Amino acid sequence: MDTARTPPTPIVTLCGGVGAARFLRGLVRVIDPREITAIVNTGDDRVFYGVHVSPDLDIVTYTLAGRVDARRGYGLEGDTYEIVDALGALGHECWFRLGDRDFANSQHRTLRLREGAGLSRVAEELRKHYGVTTRILPMSEDPCATIVELEGGRRVHFEEYLARDGAPDEVTAVDLGEARRARPGPGVLDALRDAQTILFCPSNPIVSIGPILAMPDVRAAVRRSRAPVVAISPIVGGAPVKGPADRLMRGVGVEVSARGVAELYRGLIDAFVIDERDADLAADIEAMGIRTRVLDTIMGDVGVAQHLAEAALSLAASLR
Amino acid sequence: MDTARTPPTPIVTLCGGVGAARFLRGLVRVIDPREITAIVNTGDDRVFYGVHVSPDLDIVTYTLAGRVDARRGYGLEGDTYEIVDALGALGHECWFRLGDRDFANSQHRTLRLREGAGLSRVAEELRKHYGVTTRILPMSEDPCATIVELEGGRRVHFEEYLARDGAPDEVTAVDLGEARRARPGPGVLDALRDAQTILFCPSNPIVSIGPILAMPDVRAAVRRSRAPVVAISPIVGGAPVKGPADRLMRGVGVEVSARGVAELYRGLIDAFVIDERDADLAADIEAMGIRTRVLDTIMGDVGVAQHLAEAALSLAASLR
Repeated sequence: MDTARTPPTPIVTLCGGVGAARFLRGLVRVIDPREITAIVNTGDDRVFYGVHVSPDLDIVTYTLAGRVDARRGYGLEGDTYEIVDALGALGHECWFRLGDRDFANSQHRTLRLREGAGLSRVAEELRKHYGVTTRILPMSEDPCATIVELEGGRRVHFEEYLARDGAPDEVTAVDLGEARRARPGPGVLDALRDAQTILFCPSNPIVSIGPILAMPDVRAAVRRSRAPVVAISPIVGGAPVKGPADRLMRGVGVEVSARGVAELYRGLIDAFVIDERDADLAADIEAMGIRTRVLDTIMGDVGVAQHLAEAALSLAASLR
Repeated sequence: MDTARTPPTPIVTLCGGVGAARFLRGLVRVIDPREITAIVNTGDDRVFYGVHVSPDLDIVTYTLAGRVDARRGYGLEGDTYEIVDALGALGHECWFRLGDRDFANSQHRTLRLREGAGLSRVAEELRKHYGVTTRILPMSEDPCATIVELEGGRRVHFEEYLARDGAPDEVTAVDLGEARRARPGPGVLDALRDAQTILFCPSNPIVSIGPILAMPDVRAAVRRSRAPVVAISPIVGGAPVKGPADRLMRGVGVEVSARGVAELYRGLIDAFVIDERDADLAADIEAMGIRTRVLDTIMGDVGVAQHLAEAALSLAASLR
């Protein structure tokens, strides 16, 4: 099971968690799931309760398997919480609500990593276990912790910022230093080199797509690619669809808008799908040399996600 | 929470798992539980699924808390098995059926050990968590794995022998080498030195009481003690009440009888409680210089356990 040797796929997506996973559920309705590679952020990875948790890898896997807790967008549907509750009662911090079967998967990952299997191989084991045929590649097997810096100089892991502290407003910077020094995971550069279309999923541009693009080789591979590169905006009407992207973008001095996201991706993407509520920004984005398509991007159901995927692919086709 | 500093108790018991725990449930009806110290075998400890499991410590704790799965004699009542089932489905060996809340306790132990807390401190945390007031001391904080040697030279950990292989007959030896080299855990020697009564619970003499007595300092402390030392036989009518003691005793060349157990304890105990079905062995055991008391020892309910505890204590009192 050498992930680097599985054949490259025509479609390569850069992914965070919930937004990316919802988009992928639409994409796999439009194109054979086996023709898609998901390169997934590992900047949120962290050890909780002694087990290695990969939030975005798991969200993508569970969602593509149709097993995700749909209400929350993460975790497994119908999971129980015996372990975290018991550990909480024994005095352990338990703000990260990891379900029991989710815990088992992370324990599997931990045991396999300890045995010397790489994160990519474990991702492959889990996606096969869940019957997912889309290729799921961790962006890197190196430590890539995303650190959020807060007013007063406090530095916290992204999951501490998000899940423990409730994503407060006082972000002053986001430190992607580990991702910048990380090597891309097995298969990542090959996938990008051979891609016929590259999609940036509607994920947080700072802490989800940001860490992937922080790896210099990945950034260069995207820039060098002759495949059309299309992004989907995660910002609608000046606010993120989900999550704390607004606080993080503001914290690093980027305008909280589809235009702000376009600025971040400038030089890397050829086209950008933005929401109809942001139609007035299209001209500014076009002026950056980015082809723009205006659409309903709020993926309330999988039909919208499918429509969004179709639009992104047809936009890519028009650029070829 | 320095276990070595909690005050010594008048009653000190040497304990394995199920048999010892059932006896202790009777003992705590006769005497204030805070006046009892349980020195517990750790020869069965092993890492399962990446977590440090201490079977006998947990059985004693859960039983004294009234939380044990009464049918099995181990594990927690009403526990679920999400974690082991999920790990099994991912290809891990899952013959050791650890419940989810049981798993959480072992994960707590693992995390605390990794932080540098000793096994004794963790045992103290767990007994307090479960509201148990009897002092529970691991026999040692050092590795003490009991190894069973089988025909053909195969060497397996005791839990592999028992839970995985179903306790086969072809035992040729039991290797307590690790226990022999282990240092007694914090508080163990003090407890024995200050004991007014020492009781050997009706546990497997080879693999439960055996490892505790294999530590030279413990053996010397028992021998040196001026307190009466009373054992309760785990063998009734030539067979163990529970577990594979017969195969292990036979394997190491000891007669499978209360007399065989008395031979093992000779020089260490002053008195021995045997079952009424073994009344004909009393004379032989008395001839070893061991005062013998004949009684119903099958602890079908806690009333019998209480009666047994009363008998053991009155026998001890008569020796003072």
